[in-house]
Amino acid sequence: MKDYKIIASRENSLIKLISALQTSAKKRREQRLFVIEGLRICADAYENGIRFDKLIVSETAFSKYEKELSLFSENADERIKIPDNLFLKIADTSSPQGIMALAEIPDNDIKKIDNTGRYIALENVADPANLGAVSRTAEALGVSGLILSAGGCDPYSPKALRASMGTLLRIPIIILDDFPRQIKELPLKTYSCVVDKTAESITDIGFSDGCAVIIGNEANGITAETQKISDKLITIKMPGTAQSLNAAAAAAISIWEMMK
Amino acid sequence: MKDYKIIASRENSLIKLISALQTSAKKRREQRLFVIEGLRICADAYENGIRFDKLIVSETAFSKYEKELSLFSENADERIKIPDNLFLKIADTSSPQGIMALAEIPDNDIKKIDNTGRYIALENVADPANLGAVSRTAEALGVSGLILSAGGCDPYSPKALRASMGTLLRIPIIILDDFPRQIKELPLKTYSCVVDKTAESITDIGFSDGCAVIIGNEANGITAETQKISDKLITIKMPGTAQSLNAAAAAAISIWEMMK
Repeated sequence: MKDYKIIASRENSLIKLISALQTSAKKRREQRLFVIEGLRICADAYENGIRFDKLIVSETAFSKYEKELSLFSENADERIKIPDNLFLKIADTSSPQGIMALAEIPDNDIKKIDNTGRYIALENVADPANLGAVSRTAEALGVSGLILSAGGCDPYSPKALRASMGTLLRIPIIILDDFPRQIKELPLKTYSCVVDKTAESITDIGFSDGCAVIIGNEANGITAETQKISDKLITIKMPGTAQSLNAAAAAAISIWEMMK
Repeated sequence: MKDYKIIASRENSLIKLISALQTSAKKRREQRLFVIEGLRICADAYENGIRFDKLIVSETAFSKYEKELSLFSENADERIKIPDNLFLKIADTSSPQGIMALAEIPDNDIKKIDNTGRYIALENVADPANLGAVSRTAEALGVSGLILSAGGCDPYSPKALRASMGTLLRIPIIILDDFPRQIKELPLKTYSCVVDKTAESITDIGFSDGCAVIIGNEANGITAETQKISDKLITIKMPGTAQSLNAAAAAAISIWEMMK
Protein backbone atom coordinates (compact mmCIF):
# COMPACT_ATOMS: atom_id res chain seq x y z
CA MET A 1 0.00 0.00 0.00
CA LYS A 2 1.26 3.46 -0.90
CA ASP A 3 2.28 5.99 1.76
CA TYR A 4 -0.31 8.16 3.45
CA LYS A 5 0.52 11.61 4.80
CA ILE A 6 -1.16 12.42 8.11
CA ILE A 7 -2.94 15.73 8.72
CA ALA A 8 -4.65 16.45 12.04
CA SER A 9 -5.03 20.24 12.17
CA ARG A 10 -8.08 22.16 11.02
CA GLU A 11 -5.72 25.02 10.19
CA ASN A 12 -3.85 23.00 7.58
CA SER A 13 -3.98 24.69 4.16
CA LEU A 14 -5.31 21.56 2.41
CA ILE A 15 -8.19 21.29 4.90
CA LYS A 16 -9.04 24.93 4.21
CA LEU A 17 -8.81 24.35 0.45
CA ILE A 18 -11.24 21.43 0.67
CA SER A 19 -13.79 23.52 2.56
CA ALA A 20 -13.48 26.29 -0.04
CA LEU A 21 -13.86 23.83 -2.94
CA GLN A 22 -17.01 22.35 -1.35
CA THR A 23 -18.78 25.70 -1.29
CA SER A 24 -17.28 27.94 -3.99
CA ALA A 25 -17.75 27.42 -7.73
CA LYS A 26 -15.22 30.24 -8.30
CA LYS A 27 -12.59 28.42 -6.27
CA ARG A 28 -13.27 25.23 -8.24
CA ARG A 29 -12.80 27.07 -11.53
CA GLU A 30 -9.57 28.73 -10.36
CA GLN A 31 -8.03 25.51 -9.07
CA ARG A 32 -9.55 23.23 -11.75
CA LEU A 33 -10.36 20.89 -8.87
CA PHE A 34 -13.56 19.60 -7.28
CA VAL A 35 -14.45 17.42 -4.33
CA ILE A 36 -16.03 14.01 -4.61
CA GLU A 37 -17.16 12.19 -1.52
CA GLY A 38 -18.20 8.63 -0.81
CA LEU A 39 -17.19 5.21 -2.03
CA ARG A 40 -19.60 4.93 -4.91
CA ILE A 41 -18.92 8.29 -6.50
CA CYS A 42 -15.13 7.87 -6.08
CA ALA A 43 -15.47 4.51 -7.83
CA ASP A 44 -17.46 6.17 -10.63
CA ALA A 45 -14.75 8.79 -11.06
CA TYR A 46 -11.99 6.18 -10.97
CA GLU A 47 -13.72 4.05 -13.62
CA ASN A 48 -14.17 7.11 -15.82
CA GLY A 49 -10.47 7.94 -15.73
CA ILE A 50 -10.82 11.11 -13.65
CA ARG A 51 -7.45 11.85 -12.04
CA PHE A 52 -7.32 12.34 -8.26
CA ASP A 53 -5.04 15.13 -7.14
CA LYS A 54 -5.54 14.06 -3.51
CA LEU A 55 -7.22 11.07 -1.89
CA ILE A 56 -8.38 11.85 1.66
CA VAL A 57 -9.54 9.15 4.04
CA SER A 58 -10.64 9.05 7.66
CA GLU A 59 -8.89 6.71 10.07
CA THR A 60 -11.92 4.42 10.24
CA ALA A 61 -12.30 4.27 6.46
CA PHE A 62 -8.55 3.55 6.14
CA SER A 63 -9.04 0.22 7.91
CA LYS A 64 -12.54 -0.50 6.62
CA TYR A 65 -12.08 0.02 2.85
CA GLU A 66 -8.57 -1.34 2.35
CA LYS A 67 -9.33 -3.05 -0.96
CA GLU A 68 -11.08 -0.08 -2.58
CA LEU A 69 -8.45 2.36 -1.33
CA SER A 70 -5.59 0.36 -2.80
CA LEU A 71 -7.34 0.74 -6.16
CA PHE A 72 -8.06 4.47 -5.80
CA SER A 73 -4.60 5.28 -4.48
CA GLU A 74 -3.05 4.09 -7.75
CA ASN A 75 -4.90 6.97 -9.36
CA ALA A 76 -3.97 9.61 -6.76
CA ASP A 77 -0.99 11.96 -6.75
CA GLU A 78 -1.10 12.18 -2.96
CA ARG A 79 -2.80 10.23 -0.18
CA ILE A 80 -3.83 11.76 3.14
CA LYS A 81 -5.22 10.24 6.32
CA ILE A 82 -7.11 12.43 8.79
CA PRO A 83 -8.92 11.85 12.12
CA ASP A 84 -12.61 10.90 11.89
CA ASN A 85 -13.79 14.09 13.63
CA LEU A 86 -11.84 16.26 11.18
CA PHE A 87 -13.33 14.34 8.26
CA LEU A 88 -16.79 15.03 9.63
CA LYS A 89 -15.97 18.75 9.69
CA ILE A 90 -15.03 18.91 6.01
CA ALA A 91 -17.61 16.44 4.69
CA ASP A 92 -20.65 17.73 2.83
CA THR A 93 -22.86 14.95 4.16
CA SER A 94 -23.80 14.29 7.77
CA SER A 95 -22.85 10.59 7.89
CA PRO A 96 -19.82 10.42 5.61
CA GLN A 97 -18.18 7.12 4.66
CA GLY A 98 -14.77 8.69 5.22
CA ILE A 99 -13.53 8.71 1.62
CA MET A 100 -13.02 11.87 -0.39
CA ALA A 101 -10.95 12.96 -3.37
CA LEU A 102 -9.89 16.22 -4.90
CA ALA A 103 -10.42 15.43 -8.55
CA GLU A 104 -9.27 17.29 -11.63
CA ILE A 105 -12.04 19.02 -13.59
CA PRO A 106 -12.00 17.50 -17.10
CA ASP A 107 -10.87 19.74 -19.97
CA ASN A 108 -13.61 21.98 -21.29
CA ASP A 109 -12.81 21.55 -24.95
CA ILE A 110 -15.52 22.82 -27.26
CA LYS A 111 -13.91 20.81 -30.07
CA LYS A 112 -15.12 17.64 -28.33
CA ILE A 113 -18.61 18.38 -29.71
CA ASP A 114 -19.51 15.66 -32.19
CA ASN A 115 -21.31 17.11 -35.20
CA THR A 116 -23.30 13.89 -35.53
CA GLY A 117 -24.27 13.85 -31.85
CA ARG A 118 -27.51 14.76 -30.07
CA TYR A 119 -27.10 17.10 -27.09
CA ILE A 120 -29.15 18.63 -24.33
CA ALA A 121 -28.20 22.24 -23.54
CA LEU A 122 -29.16 24.02 -20.31
CA GLU A 123 -29.09 27.81 -20.27
CA ASN A 124 -28.76 29.11 -16.71
CA VAL A 125 -30.52 26.18 -15.06
CA ALA A 126 -29.80 27.05 -11.43
CA ASP A 127 -31.01 24.20 -9.24
CA PRO A 128 -28.43 21.43 -8.68
CA ALA A 129 -31.28 18.91 -8.25
CA ASN A 130 -32.54 19.79 -11.75
CA LEU A 131 -29.06 19.61 -13.28
CA GLY A 132 -28.48 16.25 -11.57
CA ALA A 133 -31.82 14.87 -12.78
CA VAL A 134 -31.19 16.06 -16.37
CA SER A 135 -27.77 14.43 -16.31
CA ARG A 136 -29.32 11.11 -15.21
CA THR A 137 -31.96 11.28 -17.96
CA ALA A 138 -29.36 12.25 -20.57
CA GLU A 139 -27.07 9.39 -19.62
CA ALA A 140 -29.90 6.85 -19.42
CA LEU A 141 -31.33 7.77 -22.82
CA GLY A 142 -27.95 7.93 -24.57
CA VAL A 143 -27.51 11.68 -25.18
CA SER A 144 -24.05 12.60 -26.56
CA GLY A 145 -23.37 15.20 -23.88
CA LEU A 146 -24.50 18.16 -21.81
CA ILE A 147 -23.90 21.73 -22.96
CA LEU A 148 -24.10 24.17 -20.04
CA SER A 149 -23.91 27.94 -19.65
CA ALA A 150 -21.27 29.25 -17.24
CA GLY A 151 -24.02 31.26 -15.53
CA GLY A 152 -25.92 28.12 -14.50
CA CYS A 153 -25.40 25.65 -11.69
CA ASP A 154 -21.84 24.31 -11.53
CA PRO A 155 -21.83 20.61 -12.49
CA TYR A 156 -18.95 20.05 -10.07
CA SER A 157 -20.88 21.22 -6.99
CA PRO A 158 -21.40 18.51 -4.35
CA LYS A 159 -25.19 18.79 -4.59
CA ALA A 160 -25.30 18.46 -8.38
CA LEU A 161 -22.92 15.49 -8.33
CA ARG A 162 -25.02 13.72 -5.70
CA ALA A 163 -28.31 14.44 -7.48
CA SER A 164 -26.80 13.09 -10.71
CA MET A 165 -25.91 9.76 -9.02
CA GLY A 166 -22.43 10.16 -10.48
CA THR A 167 -23.66 10.50 -14.08
CA LEU A 168 -22.09 13.99 -14.31
CA LEU A 169 -18.73 12.19 -14.11
CA ARG A 170 -19.62 9.91 -17.01
CA ILE A 171 -21.29 12.14 -19.56
CA PRO A 172 -19.29 14.62 -21.70
CA ILE A 173 -19.83 18.20 -20.44
CA ILE A 174 -19.08 21.40 -22.33
CA ILE A 175 -19.43 24.72 -20.50
CA LEU A 176 -19.96 27.86 -22.60
CA ASP A 177 -18.89 31.24 -21.16
CA ASP A 178 -20.88 33.19 -23.73
CA PHE A 179 -23.84 30.88 -24.26
CA PRO A 180 -25.78 32.45 -27.17
CA ARG A 181 -22.70 33.33 -29.21
CA GLN A 182 -20.92 30.03 -28.68
CA ILE A 183 -23.91 27.73 -29.12
CA LYS A 184 -24.60 29.40 -32.45
CA GLU A 185 -21.06 28.57 -33.58
CA LEU A 186 -21.38 24.88 -32.76
CA PRO A 187 -21.87 22.48 -35.69
CA LEU A 188 -25.34 21.58 -34.38
CA LYS A 189 -28.91 22.48 -35.29
CA THR A 190 -30.34 24.16 -32.18
CA TYR A 191 -33.91 23.98 -30.87
CA SER A 192 -35.07 26.33 -28.10
CA CYS A 193 -37.79 24.67 -26.01
CA VAL A 194 -40.19 27.46 -25.04
CA VAL A 195 -43.65 27.92 -23.50
CA ASP A 196 -45.32 29.42 -26.54
CA LYS A 197 -48.40 27.99 -28.21
CA THR A 198 -47.29 29.31 -31.60
CA ALA A 199 -43.98 27.40 -31.57
CA GLU A 200 -43.78 24.10 -33.43
CA SER A 201 -44.79 21.04 -31.39
CA ILE A 202 -41.82 18.90 -30.37
CA THR A 203 -43.72 15.88 -31.71
CA ASP A 204 -43.64 17.38 -35.23
CA ILE A 205 -39.86 17.82 -35.30
CA GLY A 206 -37.93 15.14 -37.16
CA PHE A 207 -34.72 15.33 -35.16
CA SER A 208 -31.67 14.21 -37.06
CA ASP A 209 -28.05 13.75 -36.01
CA GLY A 210 -26.14 16.91 -35.14
CA CYS A 211 -28.65 18.70 -32.92
CA ALA A 212 -29.17 20.22 -29.49
CA VAL A 213 -32.36 20.99 -27.58
CA ILE A 214 -32.04 24.00 -25.27
CA ILE A 215 -33.89 24.22 -21.92
CA GLY A 216 -33.96 27.53 -20.04
CA ASN A 217 -33.77 28.83 -16.49
CA GLU A 218 -36.39 27.67 -13.95
CA ALA A 219 -37.96 31.10 -13.50
CA ASN A 220 -37.14 32.97 -16.70
CA GLY A 221 -36.88 30.36 -19.43
CA ILE A 222 -34.49 30.79 -22.37
CA THR A 223 -33.03 34.29 -22.87
CA ALA A 224 -34.35 36.37 -25.76
CA GLU A 225 -30.86 36.38 -27.27
CA THR A 226 -30.61 32.59 -27.33
CA GLN A 227 -34.15 32.22 -28.69
CA LYS A 228 -33.18 34.57 -31.50
CA ILE A 229 -30.04 32.73 -32.59
CA SER A 230 -31.48 29.23 -32.29
CA ASP A 231 -32.56 27.48 -35.48
CA LYS A 232 -36.09 26.77 -34.29
CA LEU A 233 -38.45 27.43 -31.41
CA ILE A 234 -40.20 24.28 -30.26
CA THR A 235 -42.75 23.60 -27.55
CA ILE A 236 -44.20 20.83 -25.42
CA LYS A 237 -47.95 21.21 -25.89
CA MET A 238 -49.71 21.57 -22.53
CA PRO A 239 -53.48 21.19 -22.43
CA GLY A 240 -53.62 21.87 -18.65
CA THR A 241 -53.77 25.23 -16.89
CA ALA A 242 -50.31 25.16 -15.24
CA GLN A 243 -47.93 27.70 -16.68
CA SER A 244 -44.99 25.44 -17.22
CA LEU A 245 -43.21 22.21 -16.49
CA ASN A 246 -40.37 21.87 -14.03
CA ALA A 247 -37.07 22.27 -15.96
CA ALA A 248 -36.00 18.66 -15.40
CA ALA A 249 -39.41 17.36 -16.54
CA ALA A 250 -39.27 19.52 -19.69
CA ALA A 251 -35.75 18.21 -20.32
CA ALA A 252 -36.89 14.60 -19.80
CA ILE A 253 -39.66 14.92 -22.39
CA SER A 254 -37.37 16.80 -24.80
CA ILE A 255 -34.61 14.23 -24.51
CA TRP A 256 -37.14 11.42 -24.94
CA GLU A 257 -38.48 12.96 -28.16
CA MET A 258 -35.01 13.87 -29.47
CA MET A 259 -33.62 10.36 -28.96
CA LYS A 260 -36.58 8.44 -30.35
CA MET B 1 -63.40 44.00 6.86
CA LYS B 2 -64.14 41.07 9.13
CA ASP B 3 -62.87 40.88 12.69
CA TYR B 4 -59.38 39.62 13.44
CA LYS B 5 -58.52 37.94 16.70
CA ILE B 6 -55.11 38.88 18.08
CA ILE B 7 -52.63 36.31 19.35
CA ALA B 8 -49.21 37.32 20.64
CA SER B 9 -48.00 34.40 22.72
CA ARG B 10 -45.86 31.54 21.43
CA GLU B 11 -47.53 29.37 24.04
CA ASN B 12 -50.97 29.78 22.47
CA SER B 13 -52.47 26.44 21.46
CA LEU B 14 -53.13 27.56 17.87
CA ILE B 15 -49.49 28.60 17.43
CA LYS B 16 -48.42 25.19 18.70
CA LEU B 17 -50.89 23.47 16.38
CA ILE B 18 -49.49 25.35 13.36
CA SER B 19 -45.94 24.27 14.18
CA ALA B 20 -47.08 20.66 14.53
CA LEU B 21 -49.00 20.77 11.24
CA GLN B 22 -45.93 22.17 9.44
CA THR B 23 -43.76 19.22 10.42
CA SER B 24 -45.99 16.22 11.08
CA ALA B 25 -47.90 14.31 8.41
CA LYS B 26 -49.57 12.31 11.20
CA LYS B 27 -50.88 15.51 12.79
CA ARG B 28 -52.21 16.67 9.43
CA ARG B 29 -54.06 13.40 8.93
CA GLU B 30 -55.55 13.51 12.43
CA GLN B 31 -56.73 17.10 12.16
CA ARG B 32 -57.62 16.97 8.43
CA LEU B 33 -55.81 20.32 8.19
CA PHE B 34 -52.65 21.55 6.47
CA VAL B 35 -50.73 24.80 6.34
CA ILE B 36 -50.39 26.92 3.23
CA GLU B 37 -48.14 29.91 3.24
CA GLY B 38 -47.68 32.88 0.93
CA LEU B 39 -49.93 35.03 -1.18
CA ARG B 40 -49.75 33.03 -4.37
CA ILE B 41 -50.48 29.64 -2.87
CA CYS B 42 -53.30 31.03 -0.70
CA ALA B 43 -54.78 32.52 -3.86
CA ASP B 44 -54.47 29.15 -5.61
CA ALA B 45 -56.27 27.45 -2.74
CA TYR B 46 -58.96 30.13 -2.63
CA GLU B 47 -59.60 29.84 -6.37
CA ASN B 48 -59.86 26.07 -6.06
CA GLY B 49 -62.52 26.29 -3.39
CA ILE B 50 -60.37 24.97 -0.54
CA ARG B 51 -61.91 26.08 2.74
CA PHE B 52 -59.72 27.97 5.26
CA ASP B 53 -60.26 26.94 8.86
CA LYS B 54 -58.01 29.81 9.96
CA LEU B 55 -56.41 32.74 8.15
CA ILE B 56 -53.27 33.96 9.93
CA VAL B 57 -51.57 37.23 8.99
CA SER B 58 -48.65 39.20 10.34
CA GLU B 59 -49.15 42.83 11.35
CA THR B 60 -47.16 44.04 8.35
CA ALA B 61 -49.09 41.85 5.91
CA PHE B 62 -52.36 43.01 7.46
CA SER B 63 -51.69 46.55 6.19
CA LYS B 64 -49.84 45.57 3.03
CA TYR B 65 -52.25 43.06 1.47
CA GLU B 66 -55.60 44.56 2.41
CA LYS B 67 -57.28 43.78 -0.90
CA GLU B 68 -56.19 40.14 -1.07
CA LEU B 69 -57.02 39.57 2.59
CA SER B 70 -60.55 40.87 2.25
CA LEU B 71 -61.03 38.20 -0.43
CA PHE B 72 -59.42 35.37 1.55
CA SER B 73 -61.23 36.27 4.77
CA GLU B 74 -64.60 35.60 3.13
CA ASN B 75 -63.43 32.02 2.85
CA ALA B 76 -62.09 31.70 6.42
CA ASP B 77 -63.91 30.52 9.53
CA GLU B 78 -61.61 32.58 11.73
CA ARG B 79 -59.08 35.36 11.17
CA ILE B 80 -56.02 35.89 13.35
CA LYS B 81 -53.42 38.64 13.46
CA ILE B 82 -50.03 37.99 15.04
CA PRO B 83 -46.82 40.03 15.52
CA ASP B 84 -44.24 39.83 12.69
CA ASN B 85 -41.62 38.13 14.86
CA LEU B 86 -44.08 35.41 15.89
CA PHE B 87 -45.03 34.86 12.23
CA LEU B 88 -41.36 34.39 11.41
CA LYS B 89 -41.13 31.71 14.12
CA ILE B 90 -43.97 29.62 12.70
CA ALA B 91 -43.25 30.18 9.00
CA ASP B 92 -41.65 27.41 6.96
CA THR B 93 -39.74 29.89 4.77
CA SER B 94 -37.06 32.34 5.86
CA SER B 95 -38.58 35.48 4.30
CA PRO B 96 -42.31 34.94 4.70
CA GLN B 97 -44.86 37.29 3.16
CA GLY B 98 -46.90 37.14 6.38
CA ILE B 99 -49.94 35.26 5.08
CA MET B 100 -50.82 31.74 6.12
CA ALA B 101 -53.91 29.59 6.26
CA LEU B 102 -54.92 26.38 7.95
CA ALA B 103 -56.77 24.73 5.14
CA GLU B 104 -59.04 21.72 5.15
CA ILE B 105 -57.65 18.61 3.46
CA PRO B 106 -60.05 17.73 0.63
CA ASP B 107 -62.10 14.56 1.02
CA ASN B 108 -60.22 11.44 0.03
CA ASP B 109 -63.05 9.75 -1.83
CA ILE B 110 -61.98 6.81 -3.94
CA LYS B 111 -65.31 7.05 -5.77
CA LYS B 112 -64.05 10.28 -7.39
CA ILE B 113 -61.95 8.12 -9.74
CA ASP B 114 -63.27 8.57 -13.26
CA ASN B 115 -63.28 5.26 -15.12
CA THR B 116 -62.62 7.11 -18.37
CA GLY B 117 -59.73 9.13 -16.90
CA ARG B 118 -55.97 8.76 -17.23
CA TYR B 119 -54.07 8.80 -13.93
CA ILE B 120 -50.50 8.80 -12.68
CA ALA B 121 -49.99 6.70 -9.55
CA LEU B 122 -46.98 7.02 -7.25
CA GLU B 123 -46.19 4.12 -4.92
CA ASN B 124 -44.09 5.29 -1.96
CA VAL B 125 -42.41 8.17 -3.81
CA ALA B 126 -40.68 9.80 -0.84
CA ASP B 127 -39.09 13.04 -2.01
CA PRO B 128 -41.40 16.09 -1.84
CA ALA B 129 -39.47 17.66 -4.75
CA ASN B 130 -40.31 14.63 -6.90
CA LEU B 131 -43.97 14.63 -5.86
CA GLY B 132 -44.17 18.37 -6.57
CA ALA B 133 -42.56 18.00 -9.99
CA VAL B 134 -44.86 15.09 -10.93
CA SER B 135 -47.87 17.14 -9.88
CA ARG B 136 -46.74 20.02 -12.13
CA THR B 137 -46.23 17.68 -15.09
CA ALA B 138 -49.56 15.93 -14.47
CA GLU B 139 -51.45 19.22 -14.30
CA ALA B 140 -49.67 20.68 -17.36
CA LEU B 141 -50.31 17.64 -19.53
CA GLY B 142 -53.93 17.21 -18.47
CA VAL B 143 -53.80 14.07 -16.33
CA SER B 144 -57.11 13.29 -14.55
CA GLY B 145 -55.53 13.00 -11.12
CA LEU B 146 -52.80 11.70 -8.85
CA ILE B 147 -53.14 8.38 -7.02
CA LEU B 148 -50.76 8.18 -4.07
CA SER B 149 -49.85 5.53 -1.51
CA ALA B 150 -50.24 6.52 2.15
CA GLY B 151 -46.64 5.37 2.69
CA GLY B 152 -45.27 7.99 0.31
CA CYS B 153 -44.59 11.69 0.73
CA ASP B 154 -47.59 13.60 2.09
CA PRO B 155 -48.97 15.91 -0.65
CA TYR B 156 -49.95 18.40 2.06
CA SER B 157 -46.38 18.88 3.36
CA PRO B 158 -45.04 22.44 2.94
CA LYS B 159 -42.13 21.25 0.76
CA ALA B 160 -44.32 19.25 -1.62
CA LEU B 161 -46.81 22.11 -1.97
CA ARG B 162 -44.02 24.58 -2.76
CA ALA B 163 -42.31 22.25 -5.24
CA SER B 164 -45.66 21.71 -6.97
CA MET B 165 -46.13 25.47 -7.47
CA GLY B 166 -49.62 25.06 -6.04
CA THR B 167 -50.66 22.41 -8.58
CA LEU B 168 -51.26 19.92 -5.72
CA LEU B 169 -54.19 22.17 -4.74
CA ARG B 170 -55.66 22.01 -8.24
CA ILE B 171 -55.35 18.41 -9.32
CA PRO B 172 -57.59 15.65 -7.86
CA ILE B 173 -55.68 13.51 -5.36
CA ILE B 174 -56.64 10.07 -4.08
CA ILE B 175 -54.59 8.48 -1.29
CA LEU B 176 -54.69 4.69 -0.91
CA ASP B 177 -53.95 3.17 2.50
CA ASP B 178 -53.44 -0.31 1.07
CA PHE B 179 -51.94 0.54 -2.32
CA PRO B 180 -51.74 -2.84 -4.14
CA ARG B 181 -55.13 -4.05 -2.95
CA GLN B 182 -56.97 -0.81 -3.59
CA ILE B 183 -55.39 0.07 -6.93
CA LYS B 184 -56.40 -3.36 -8.20
CA GLU B 185 -60.02 -2.61 -7.28
CA LEU B 186 -60.10 0.69 -9.20
CA PRO B 187 -61.94 0.67 -12.55
CA LEU B 188 -58.65 1.40 -14.35
CA LYS B 189 -56.17 -0.62 -16.39
CA THR B 190 -52.87 -0.39 -14.48
CA TYR B 191 -49.36 -0.26 -15.92
CA SER B 192 -46.33 -0.70 -13.63
CA CYS B 193 -43.35 1.23 -15.03
CA VAL B 194 -40.29 -0.88 -14.22
CA VAL B 195 -36.60 -1.07 -15.11
CA ASP B 196 -36.70 -4.41 -16.88
CA LYS B 197 -35.57 -4.96 -20.45
CA THR B 198 -38.10 -7.76 -20.90
CA ALA B 199 -41.11 -5.54 -20.08
CA GLU B 200 -43.06 -4.03 -22.98
CA SER B 201 -41.77 -0.68 -24.25
CA ILE B 202 -43.99 2.23 -23.23
CA THR B 203 -43.95 3.35 -26.87
CA ASP B 204 -45.70 0.11 -27.89
CA ILE B 205 -48.62 0.57 -25.49
CA GLY B 206 -51.79 1.95 -27.01
CA PHE B 207 -53.11 3.72 -23.91
CA SER B 208 -56.85 4.13 -23.88
CA ASP B 209 -59.19 5.90 -21.47
CA GLY B 210 -59.48 4.42 -18.00
CA CYS B 211 -55.84 3.77 -17.15
CA ALA B 212 -53.11 4.52 -14.63
CA VAL B 213 -49.34 4.36 -14.95
CA ILE B 214 -47.59 3.47 -11.68
CA ILE B 215 -44.15 4.88 -10.75
CA GLY B 216 -42.29 3.42 -7.78
CA ASN B 217 -40.10 4.55 -4.91
CA GLU B 218 -36.83 6.38 -5.71
CA ALA B 219 -34.57 3.64 -4.32
CA ASN B 220 -36.64 0.48 -4.54
CA GLY B 221 -39.02 0.95 -7.47
CA ILE B 222 -42.48 -0.60 -7.46
CA THR B 223 -43.15 -3.29 -4.82
CA ALA B 224 -43.34 -6.91 -5.98
CA GLU B 225 -46.95 -7.06 -4.79
CA THR B 226 -48.01 -4.10 -6.92
CA GLN B 227 -46.12 -5.39 -9.96
CA LYS B 228 -47.97 -8.67 -9.57
CA ILE B 229 -51.47 -7.20 -9.44
CA SER B 230 -50.95 -4.62 -12.20
CA ASP B 231 -52.33 -5.42 -15.64
CA LYS B 232 -49.03 -4.94 -17.44
CA LEU B 233 -45.35 -4.24 -16.80
CA ILE B 234 -44.00 -1.52 -19.04
CA THR B 235 -40.58 0.06 -19.39
CA ILE B 236 -38.83 3.16 -20.69
CA LYS B 237 -36.07 1.75 -22.89
CA MET B 238 -32.67 3.07 -21.82
CA PRO B 239 -29.73 2.59 -24.16
CA GLY B 240 -27.28 4.26 -21.73
CA THR B 241 -25.39 2.66 -18.86
CA ALA B 242 -27.18 4.46 -15.98
CA GLN B 243 -29.33 2.16 -13.90
CA SER B 244 -32.44 4.25 -13.87
CA LEU B 245 -34.13 7.59 -14.30
CA ASN B 246 -35.03 9.94 -11.48
CA ALA B 247 -38.64 9.21 -10.41
CA ALA B 248 -39.94 12.58 -11.62
CA ALA B 249 -38.22 12.16 -15.01
CA ALA B 250 -39.67 8.65 -15.41
CA ALA B 251 -43.08 10.07 -14.51
CA ALA B 252 -42.69 12.93 -17.01
CA ILE B 253 -41.94 10.54 -19.87
CA SER B 254 -44.72 8.15 -18.77
CA ILE B 255 -47.31 10.92 -18.54
CA TRP B 256 -46.19 12.28 -21.91
CA GLU B 257 -46.66 8.88 -23.59
CA MET B 258 -49.94 8.17 -21.76
CA MET B 259 -51.49 11.51 -22.75
CA LYS B 260 -50.41 11.52 -26.41
